[in-house]
Amino acid sequence: MKSMKIPEATVLRLSIYSRYLKQLWEKGVTNVSSGEIAEGVNGTSAQVRKDLAYFGEFGTRGVGYKVRILDKQITEILGINNEWEVVIVGAGNLGSALTHYKGFKERRFNIQAVFDNDENKIGSKINDVLVYSITDMDNFIKENDIQIGIVAVPATYAQGVVDILIKAGIKSILNFAPTVISVPEHVEHRSVDLVVNLEVLTYNLVNKK
Amino acid sequence: MKSMKIPEATVLRLSIYSRYLKQLWEKGVTNVSSGEIAEGVNGTSAQVRKDLAYFGEFGTRGVGYKVRILDKQITEILGINNEWEVVIVGAGNLGSALTHYKGFKERRFNIQAVFDNDENKIGSKINDVLVYSITDMDNFIKENDIQIGIVAVPATYAQGVVDILIKAGIKSILNFAPTVISVPEHVEHRSVDLVVNLEVLTYNLVNKK
Repeated sequence: MKSMKIPEATVLRLSIYSRYLKQLWEKGVTNVSSGEIAEGVNGTSAQVRKDLAYFGEFGTRGVGYKVRILDKQITEILGINNEWEVVIVGAGNLGSALTHYKGFKERRFNIQAVFDNDENKIGSKINDVLVYSITDMDNFIKENDIQIGIVAVPATYAQGVVDILIKAGIKSILNFAPTVISVPEHVEHRSVDLVVNLEVLTYNLVNKK
Repeated sequence: MKSMKIPEATVLRLSIYSRYLKQLWEKGVTNVSSGEIAEGVNGTSAQVRKDLAYFGEFGTRGVGYKVRILDKQITEILGINNEWEVVIVGAGNLGSALTHYKGFKERRFNIQAVFDNDENKIGSKINDVLVYSITDMDNFIKENDIQIGIVAVPATYAQGVVDILIKAGIKSILNFAPTVISVPEHVEHRSVDLVVNLEVLTYNLVNKK
Protein backbone atom coordinates (compact mmCIF):
# COMPACT_ATOMS: atom_id res chain seq x y z
CA MET A 1 0.00 0.00 0.00
CA LYS A 2 1.29 3.44 -0.91
CA SER A 3 2.10 5.38 2.24
CA MET A 4 1.41 9.10 2.49
CA LYS A 5 1.36 11.71 5.18
CA ILE A 6 -2.08 11.62 6.71
CA PRO A 7 -3.28 13.78 9.62
CA GLU A 8 -2.72 12.40 13.08
CA ALA A 9 -6.41 12.92 13.89
CA THR A 10 -7.24 10.49 11.09
CA VAL A 11 -4.79 7.91 12.43
CA LEU A 12 -6.40 8.23 15.87
CA ARG A 13 -9.84 7.66 14.37
CA LEU A 14 -8.67 4.68 12.30
CA SER A 15 -7.62 3.02 15.53
CA ILE A 16 -11.09 3.61 16.94
CA TYR A 17 -12.81 2.37 13.76
CA SER A 18 -10.71 -0.76 13.91
CA ARG A 19 -11.79 -1.57 17.44
CA TYR A 20 -15.42 -0.98 16.52
CA LEU A 21 -15.11 -3.22 13.44
CA LYS A 22 -13.73 -6.02 15.65
CA GLN A 23 -16.76 -5.64 17.93
CA LEU A 24 -19.09 -5.88 14.92
CA TRP A 25 -17.30 -8.96 13.59
CA GLU A 26 -17.56 -10.68 16.97
CA LYS A 27 -21.32 -10.03 16.87
CA GLY A 28 -21.52 -11.70 13.44
CA VAL A 29 -21.91 -8.52 11.37
CA THR A 30 -20.23 -8.94 7.98
CA ASN A 31 -21.18 -5.73 6.13
CA VAL A 32 -21.30 -2.17 7.36
CA SER A 33 -22.00 1.27 5.89
CA SER A 34 -20.01 4.41 6.66
CA GLY A 35 -23.12 5.70 8.44
CA GLU A 36 -23.19 2.67 10.72
CA ILE A 37 -19.49 3.02 11.53
CA ALA A 38 -20.07 6.71 12.24
CA GLU A 39 -22.93 5.90 14.60
CA GLY A 40 -20.81 3.33 16.44
CA VAL A 41 -18.00 5.80 17.10
CA ASN A 42 -20.00 9.02 17.55
CA GLY A 43 -18.75 10.48 14.27
CA THR A 44 -20.26 11.49 10.95
CA SER A 45 -20.43 9.30 7.86
CA ALA A 46 -18.75 12.05 5.81
CA GLN A 47 -15.81 11.96 8.23
CA VAL A 48 -15.60 8.16 8.07
CA ARG A 49 -15.60 8.20 4.26
CA LYS A 50 -12.99 10.95 4.17
CA ASP A 51 -10.71 9.13 6.61
CA LEU A 52 -10.90 5.86 4.68
CA ALA A 53 -10.44 7.61 1.35
CA TYR A 54 -6.82 8.37 2.30
CA PHE A 55 -6.06 4.74 1.60
CA GLY A 56 -8.00 4.20 -1.61
CA GLU A 57 -11.40 2.75 -2.25
CA PHE A 58 -12.38 0.10 0.27
CA GLY A 59 -16.15 0.24 0.03
CA THR A 60 -18.73 -0.14 -2.69
CA ARG A 61 -21.35 2.55 -3.18
CA GLY A 62 -24.70 1.39 -1.86
CA VAL A 63 -23.24 -1.81 -0.41
CA GLY A 64 -20.78 -0.47 2.14
CA TYR A 65 -17.72 -2.18 3.52
CA LYS A 66 -16.91 -5.80 4.26
CA VAL A 67 -16.20 -5.69 8.02
CA ARG A 68 -13.44 -8.30 8.00
CA ILE A 69 -11.57 -6.93 4.98
CA LEU A 70 -11.82 -3.30 6.08
CA ASP A 71 -10.52 -4.15 9.53
CA LYS A 72 -7.65 -6.17 8.04
CA GLN A 73 -6.69 -3.21 5.87
CA ILE A 74 -6.83 -0.68 8.72
CA THR A 75 -4.87 -3.07 10.93
CA GLU A 76 -2.17 -3.22 8.26
CA ILE A 77 -2.13 0.55 7.86
CA LEU A 78 -1.72 1.02 11.61
CA GLY A 79 1.10 -1.50 11.67
CA ILE A 80 -0.64 -3.77 14.16
CA ASN A 81 -0.89 -6.82 11.94
CA ASN A 82 2.40 -7.67 13.66
CA GLU A 83 3.01 -8.09 17.37
CA TRP A 84 4.99 -5.39 19.17
CA GLU A 85 7.33 -5.98 22.07
CA VAL A 86 6.94 -3.42 24.85
CA VAL A 87 8.58 -2.59 28.17
CA ILE A 88 7.17 -0.36 30.90
CA VAL A 89 9.50 1.76 33.00
CA GLY A 90 8.17 2.50 36.47
CA ALA A 91 6.44 -0.03 38.76
CA GLY A 92 4.51 2.61 40.72
CA ASN A 93 0.74 3.02 40.64
CA LEU A 94 0.58 4.12 37.02
CA GLY A 95 3.13 1.59 35.73
CA SER A 96 1.29 -1.13 37.58
CA ALA A 97 -2.08 -0.04 36.17
CA LEU A 98 -0.62 0.01 32.66
CA THR A 99 0.83 -3.49 33.15
CA HIS A 100 -2.64 -4.73 34.12
CA TYR A 101 -4.36 -2.90 31.24
CA LYS A 102 -6.11 -5.54 29.12
CA GLY A 103 -6.36 -3.40 26.01
CA PHE A 104 -2.66 -3.74 25.17
CA LYS A 105 -2.67 -7.54 24.90
CA GLU A 106 -5.89 -7.50 22.84
CA ARG A 107 -4.16 -5.35 20.23
CA ARG A 108 -1.02 -7.52 20.31
CA PHE A 109 1.21 -5.22 22.33
CA ASN A 110 3.18 -7.66 24.51
CA ILE A 111 4.52 -6.28 27.75
CA GLN A 112 7.77 -8.16 28.25
CA ALA A 113 9.16 -6.49 31.35
CA VAL A 114 8.71 -3.72 33.91
CA PHE A 115 11.73 -1.79 35.21
CA ASP A 116 12.13 0.07 38.48
CA ASN A 117 14.90 1.19 40.83
CA ASP A 118 13.09 0.13 44.02
CA GLU A 119 14.82 -2.93 45.54
CA ASN A 120 11.52 -3.99 47.13
CA LYS A 121 9.83 -4.25 43.75
CA ILE A 122 12.63 -5.83 41.72
CA GLY A 123 12.04 -9.56 41.34
CA SER A 124 8.31 -9.32 42.04
CA LYS A 125 5.62 -9.81 39.40
CA ILE A 126 2.87 -7.48 38.20
CA ASN A 127 0.15 -9.34 36.32
CA ASP A 128 2.68 -12.12 35.53
CA VAL A 129 5.27 -9.66 34.21
CA LEU A 130 8.61 -9.64 36.06
CA VAL A 131 9.98 -6.38 37.52
CA TYR A 132 13.69 -5.91 36.71
CA SER A 133 16.26 -3.41 37.93
CA ILE A 134 16.63 -0.37 35.73
CA THR A 135 20.32 -1.25 35.45
CA ASP A 136 19.30 -4.33 33.40
CA MET A 137 17.20 -2.30 31.00
CA ASP A 138 19.80 -1.65 28.30
CA ASN A 139 20.69 -5.34 28.01
CA PHE A 140 17.11 -6.54 28.14
CA ILE A 141 15.98 -4.23 25.34
CA LYS A 142 18.85 -5.27 23.07
CA GLU A 143 18.51 -8.99 23.73
CA ASN A 144 14.73 -9.12 23.39
CA ASP A 145 14.42 -6.77 20.44
CA ILE A 146 12.02 -4.43 22.26
CA GLN A 147 10.52 -1.77 20.01
CA ILE A 148 8.36 0.34 22.31
CA GLY A 149 9.09 1.83 25.74
CA ILE A 150 6.35 3.19 27.99
CA VAL A 151 7.56 5.73 30.54
CA ALA A 152 5.60 5.85 33.80
CA VAL A 153 8.09 7.42 36.21
CA PRO A 154 7.94 10.77 38.06
CA ALA A 155 8.65 13.82 35.91
CA THR A 156 12.13 14.38 37.34
CA TYR A 157 13.29 10.90 36.25
CA ALA A 158 11.64 10.88 32.83
CA GLN A 159 14.43 12.31 30.65
CA GLY A 160 17.04 10.03 32.26
CA VAL A 161 14.89 6.99 31.52
CA VAL A 162 14.22 8.18 27.97
CA ASP A 163 17.97 8.57 27.37
CA ILE A 164 18.60 4.97 28.47
CA LEU A 165 15.76 3.71 26.24
CA ILE A 166 17.12 5.53 23.22
CA LYS A 167 20.70 4.42 23.82
CA ALA A 168 19.43 0.83 23.97
CA GLY A 169 17.85 1.24 20.53
CA ILE A 170 14.16 1.83 21.30
CA LYS A 171 12.36 3.32 18.28
CA SER A 172 9.20 4.50 19.93
CA ILE A 173 8.29 6.02 23.30
CA LEU A 174 4.94 6.61 24.97
CA ASN A 175 5.47 9.05 27.83
CA PHE A 176 3.11 9.39 30.80
CA ALA A 177 5.39 11.56 32.92
CA PRO A 178 3.96 15.09 33.16
CA THR A 179 6.93 16.76 31.54
CA VAL A 180 8.31 17.51 28.09
CA ILE A 181 10.90 14.96 26.94
CA SER A 182 13.58 15.39 24.27
CA VAL A 183 14.21 12.64 21.76
CA PRO A 184 16.33 12.53 18.59
CA GLU A 185 14.49 12.82 15.31
CA HIS A 186 14.60 9.12 14.41
CA VAL A 187 12.64 8.21 17.56
CA GLU A 188 8.84 8.44 17.55
CA HIS A 189 7.22 9.67 20.71
CA ARG A 190 3.89 10.70 22.15
CA SER A 191 3.02 12.06 25.54
CA VAL A 192 -0.21 11.28 27.35
CA ASP A 193 -0.64 14.08 29.82
CA LEU A 194 -3.48 13.50 32.25
CA VAL A 195 -3.62 17.05 33.58
CA VAL A 196 -3.53 18.61 30.12
CA ASN A 197 -6.61 16.58 29.23
CA LEU A 198 -8.44 17.85 32.29
CA GLU A 199 -7.46 21.43 31.46
CA VAL A 200 -8.95 21.18 27.99
CA LEU A 201 -12.19 20.23 29.72
CA THR A 202 -12.07 23.16 32.13
CA TYR A 203 -11.20 25.51 29.27
CA ASN A 204 -14.28 24.30 27.38
CA LEU A 205 -16.44 24.66 30.50
CA VAL A 206 -15.45 28.23 31.32
CA ASN A 207 -15.55 29.40 27.71
CA LYS A 208 -19.00 28.05 26.96
CA LYS A 209 -21.59 30.49 25.87
CA MET B 1 -11.23 38.60 28.52
CA LYS B 2 -13.08 38.06 25.25
CA SER B 3 -13.58 34.37 24.62
CA MET B 4 -13.35 32.94 21.13
CA LYS B 5 -13.16 29.50 19.57
CA ILE B 6 -9.52 28.52 19.56
CA PRO B 7 -8.13 25.22 18.28
CA GLU B 8 -7.92 22.39 20.79
CA ALA B 9 -4.24 21.88 19.94
CA THR B 10 -3.61 25.43 21.14
CA VAL B 11 -5.47 24.79 24.40
CA LEU B 12 -3.35 21.66 24.95
CA ARG B 13 -0.17 23.66 24.40
CA LEU B 14 -1.31 26.48 26.71
CA SER B 15 -1.60 23.93 29.47
CA ILE B 16 1.97 22.80 28.79
CA TYR B 17 3.26 26.41 28.61
CA SER B 18 1.60 27.11 31.94
CA ARG B 19 3.34 24.22 33.65
CA TYR B 20 6.67 25.31 32.19
CA LEU B 21 6.13 28.92 33.33
CA LYS B 22 5.49 27.67 36.87
CA GLN B 23 8.79 25.77 36.76
CA LEU B 24 10.58 28.92 35.61
CA TRP B 25 8.97 31.02 38.32
CA GLU B 26 10.01 28.51 40.99
CA LYS B 27 13.58 28.81 39.71
CA GLY B 28 13.41 32.58 40.11
CA VAL B 29 13.08 33.45 36.41
CA THR B 30 10.93 36.58 35.98
CA ASN B 31 11.17 37.29 32.23
CA VAL B 32 11.05 34.91 29.30
CA SER B 33 11.08 35.17 25.49
CA SER B 34 8.88 33.13 23.16
CA GLY B 35 12.07 31.39 22.03
CA GLU B 36 12.89 30.32 25.57
CA ILE B 37 9.35 29.03 26.14
CA ALA B 38 9.60 27.15 22.84
CA GLU B 39 12.88 25.55 23.87
CA GLY B 40 11.43 24.49 27.22
CA VAL B 41 8.48 22.70 25.62
CA ASN B 42 10.13 21.40 22.43
CA GLY B 43 8.19 23.80 20.23
CA THR B 44 9.02 26.70 17.95
CA SER B 45 8.92 30.35 18.94
CA ALA B 46 6.61 31.11 16.00
CA GLN B 47 4.14 28.56 17.37
CA VAL B 48 4.36 30.01 20.88
CA ARG B 49 3.73 33.54 19.62
CA LYS B 50 0.83 32.35 17.46
CA ASP B 51 -0.78 30.47 20.35
CA LEU B 52 -0.50 33.42 22.72
CA ALA B 53 -1.74 35.86 20.08
CA TYR B 54 -5.21 34.29 20.30
CA PHE B 55 -5.61 36.12 23.57
CA GLY B 56 -4.19 39.50 22.71
CA GLU B 57 -0.78 40.97 23.26
CA PHE B 58 0.90 39.66 26.38
CA GLY B 59 4.53 40.29 25.52
CA THR B 60 6.67 43.25 24.56
CA ARG B 61 8.81 43.04 21.44
CA GLY B 62 12.47 42.59 22.41
CA VAL B 63 11.63 42.22 26.09
CA GLY B 64 9.47 39.12 26.11
CA TYR B 65 6.92 38.09 28.66
CA LYS B 66 6.68 38.55 32.42
CA VAL B 67 6.59 34.94 33.67
CA ARG B 68 4.20 35.54 36.55
CA ILE B 69 1.70 37.65 34.60
CA LEU B 70 1.70 35.40 31.55
CA ASP B 71 1.09 32.33 33.69
CA LYS B 72 -1.69 34.07 35.56
CA GLN B 73 -3.37 34.97 32.28
CA ILE B 74 -3.07 31.47 30.84
CA THR B 75 -4.33 30.00 34.10
CA GLU B 76 -7.38 32.21 33.85
CA ILE B 77 -7.96 31.28 30.21
CA LEU B 78 -7.80 27.57 31.06
CA GLY B 79 -10.25 28.07 33.89
CA ILE B 80 -7.86 26.73 36.53
CA ASN B 81 -7.62 29.89 38.61
CA ASN B 82 -10.45 28.19 40.50
CA GLU B 83 -10.39 24.82 42.20
CA TRP B 84 -12.36 21.99 40.60
CA GLU B 85 -14.11 19.21 42.48
CA VAL B 86 -13.57 15.79 40.93
CA VAL B 87 -14.73 12.22 41.50
CA ILE B 88 -13.16 9.08 40.07
CA VAL B 89 -15.34 6.11 39.17
CA GLY B 90 -13.55 2.77 39.40
CA ALA B 91 -11.19 1.71 42.20
CA GLY B 92 -9.27 -0.79 40.07
CA ASN B 93 -5.66 -0.43 39.03
CA LEU B 94 -6.22 2.58 36.80
CA GLY B 95 -8.63 4.36 39.15
CA SER B 96 -6.21 3.79 41.99
CA ALA B 97 -3.27 5.11 39.95
CA LEU B 98 -5.29 8.21 39.02
CA THR B 99 -6.22 8.78 42.66
CA HIS B 100 -2.51 8.72 43.55
CA TYR B 101 -1.52 10.97 40.65
CA LYS B 102 0.16 14.05 42.10
CA GLY B 103 -0.35 16.23 39.04
CA PHE B 104 -4.07 16.71 39.72
CA LYS B 105 -3.65 18.26 43.15
CA GLU B 106 -0.84 20.54 41.92
CA ARG B 107 -3.23 22.02 39.37
CA ARG B 108 -6.05 22.35 41.92
CA PHE B 109 -8.17 19.41 40.82
CA ASN B 110 -9.44 18.02 44.13
CA ILE B 111 -10.39 14.35 44.12
CA GLN B 112 -13.27 14.15 46.58
CA ALA B 113 -14.31 10.53 46.27
CA VAL B 114 -13.78 7.25 44.44
CA PHE B 115 -16.75 5.02 43.57
CA ASP B 116 -16.82 1.29 42.97
CA ASN B 117 -19.27 -1.62 43.13
CA ASP B 118 -16.85 -4.00 44.86
CA GLU B 119 -17.94 -4.57 48.50
CA ASN B 120 -14.31 -5.27 49.46
CA LYS B 121 -13.19 -1.85 48.33
CA ILE B 122 -16.08 0.26 49.59
CA GLY B 123 -15.12 1.98 52.86
CA SER B 124 -11.37 1.67 52.23
CA LYS B 125 -9.13 4.60 51.37
CA ILE B 126 -6.90 5.23 48.37
CA ASN B 127 -4.34 7.93 49.03
CA ASP B 128 -6.61 9.33 51.77
CA VAL B 129 -9.66 9.41 49.49
CA LEU B 130 -12.62 7.30 50.61
CA VAL B 131 -14.12 4.67 48.30
CA TYR B 132 -17.92 4.82 48.22
CA SER B 133 -20.54 2.53 46.73
CA ILE B 134 -21.62 3.47 43.24
CA THR B 135 -25.18 3.60 44.59
CA ASP B 136 -24.15 6.70 46.61
CA MET B 137 -22.73 8.49 43.59
CA ASP B 138 -25.79 10.47 42.54
CA ASN B 139 -26.28 11.91 46.03
CA PHE B 140 -22.62 12.63 46.59
CA ILE B 141 -22.25 14.56 43.35
CA LYS B 142 -25.30 16.70 44.05
CA GLU B 143 -24.42 17.39 47.68
CA ASN B 144 -20.77 18.21 47.05
CA ASP B 145 -21.23 20.19 43.86
CA ILE B 146 -18.85 17.95 41.88
CA GLN B 147 -18.06 19.31 38.41
CA ILE B 148 -15.83 16.67 36.84
CA GLY B 149 -16.16 12.90 36.69
CA ILE B 150 -13.25 10.64 35.69
CA VAL B 151 -14.32 7.25 34.36
CA ALA B 152 -11.88 4.39 34.98
CA VAL B 153 -14.11 1.33 34.73
CA PRO B 154 -14.06 -1.54 32.20
CA ALA B 155 -15.45 -0.69 28.76
CA THR B 156 -18.69 -2.61 29.29
CA TYR B 157 -19.60 -0.52 32.36
CA ALA B 158 -18.54 2.86 30.99
CA GLN B 159 -21.80 4.06 29.43
CA GLY B 160 -23.83 3.06 32.48
CA VAL B 161 -21.50 5.05 34.73
CA VAL B 162 -21.56 8.01 32.35
CA ASP B 163 -25.37 8.00 32.41
CA ILE B 164 -25.38 8.16 36.23
CA LEU B 165 -22.83 11.01 36.22
CA ILE B 166 -24.87 13.04 33.75
CA LYS B 167 -28.13 12.44 35.59
CA ALA B 168 -26.45 13.70 38.77
CA GLY B 169 -25.51 16.93 37.00
CA ILE B 170 -21.83 16.44 36.08
CA LYS B 171 -20.76 18.94 33.42
CA SER B 172 -17.51 17.37 32.33
CA ILE B 173 -16.26 13.80 31.85
CA LEU B 174 -12.77 12.43 31.28
CA ASN B 175 -13.11 8.86 30.05
CA PHE B 176 -10.35 6.25 30.29
CA ALA B 177 -12.50 3.25 29.35
CA PRO B 178 -11.47 1.97 25.91
CA THR B 179 -14.83 2.56 24.31
CA VAL B 180 -16.84 5.34 22.73
CA ILE B 181 -19.26 7.00 25.14
CA SER B 182 -22.37 9.03 24.33
CA VAL B 183 -23.08 12.26 26.18
CA PRO B 184 -25.65 15.01 25.60
CA GLU B 185 -24.42 18.18 23.96
CA HIS B 186 -24.27 20.26 27.12
CA VAL B 187 -21.72 17.88 28.68
CA GLU B 188 -18.02 18.25 27.82
CA HIS B 189 -16.07 15.06 27.45
CA ARG B 190 -12.68 13.77 26.40
CA SER B 191 -11.44 10.23 26.08
CA VAL B 192 -7.89 9.20 26.85
CA ASP B 193 -7.39 5.98 24.97
CA LEU B 194 -4.13 4.27 25.84
CA VAL B 195 -4.18 1.81 22.94
CA VAL B 196 -5.02 4.48 20.38
CA ASN B 197 -1.92 6.38 21.45
CA LEU B 198 0.24 3.30 20.96
CA GLU B 199 -1.27 2.72 17.53
CA VAL B 200 -0.37 6.22 16.38
CA LEU B 201 3.21 5.32 17.29
CA THR B 202 3.16 2.06 15.35
CA TYR B 203 1.57 3.79 12.38
CA ASN B 204 4.39 6.33 12.38
CA LEU B 205 6.99 3.58 12.70
CA VAL B 206 5.75 1.46 9.81
CA ASN B 207 5.10 4.43 7.54
CA LYS B 208 8.51 6.02 7.96
CA LYS B 209 10.61 6.51 4.90
